[in-house]
Amino acid sequence: MLVGDALQALAFESLAAAAGLGASPTAVVAMVAELGRGAGSLGMAGGQAIDLAAVGRKLARAELEDMHRRKTGALLAASVRLGAACGRPLSGAERMQLDRFALAVGLAFQVVDDVLDVEADSATLGKTAGKDSEQNKPTYVSVLGLREARALAQSLRAEARSALAGLGPGASRLAAISDLIVQRSS
Amino acid sequence: MLVGDALQALAFESLAAAAGLGASPTAVVAMVAELGRGAGSLGMAGGQAIDLAAVGRKLARAELEDMHRRKTGALLAASVRLGAACGRPLSGAERMQLDRFALAVGLAFQVVDDVLDVEADSATLGKTAGKDSEQNKPTYVSVLGLREARALAQSLRAEARSALAGLGPGASRLAAISDLIVQRSS
Repeated sequence: MLVGDALQALAFESLAAAAGLGASPTAVVAMVAELGRGAGSLGMAGGQAIDLAAVGRKLARAELEDMHRRKTGALLAASVRLGAACGRPLSGAERMQLDRFALAVGLAFQVVDDVLDVEADSATLGKTAGKDSEQNKPTYVSVLGLREARALAQSLRAEARSALAGLGPGASRLAAISDLIVQRSS
Repeated sequence: MLVGDALQALAFESLAAAAGLGASPTAVVAMVAELGRGAGSLGMAGGQAIDLAAVGRKLARAELEDMHRRKTGALLAASVRLGAACGRPLSGAERMQLDRFALAVGLAFQVVDDVLDVEADSATLGKTAGKDSEQNKPTYVSVLGLREARALAQSLRAEARSALAGLGPGASRLAAISDLIVQRSS
């Protein structure tokens, strides 16, 4: 956790250093605000708090999605926006497409995580398999069942890819990321 | 710890918001870098790591000072610099004076903390008295003894006040802070 604290500080320090690499100070300030929102109480830290409060309790699917939207979705959306902020100016519609992409990819990541927790063995996973369900943490598999959770991952991947429609070849790496996230085995 | 993570993100977000309150984006970027350094692996988080690694081990006074210089000194120095960055431009000599002040006040805070851990009762202290020495954590009292630790706090207060010499009436609140830190009883 201490390493996480140090890395969080380093992330902001690195953004500030981008001003020395050609980004305008105004753009850097906007990026700092974006990262702060994604990491803070309305984002990652807030989602993790919901997660801790939910252990041992049965969450409805909507609650589970709200938790993950904050816990990983908000920071993932911030990452996508930070990347976009380094490129050409975007229209409002293009911004919304990227947010849709990030939301779908963020949820897909969690759904796949929950599926792998049940399916994979610990060696492949790089962490103890079955740990989440043992700890009685709410997962997509416990809420939806394994088959439906797998189907949800595939549909979120399709949603992520469709969100990128019309963004041109520059978005092809984002599409590849959504494939990677859903097809990973660890 | 999660609240700390959220507050750390909020600190950076608040700095970014200062750009909307009249601070120049360039100044805000410099402040973000300053806060990142003070909070990160070379500052607070790094000092806390040294602290964790030192439990149960006997530290020399120089090691104890290095730990506190990072753990609270770096962030305190950053706070002083951030305040200064909102005022008129400072000369290099003035900057060094403020750093000397912050270093002395930061160490004084720790020394007084260690003295109070031995002297005060838990009700006054607002945390469990004697906790640090019970946990076998290195403290200024265990390294120097109570009488010498008290004397050190007074000499750091004098050092802090002398560092402010010539900075004018604007520095009087900083002098008051150094008095408060050394004279507090909780």
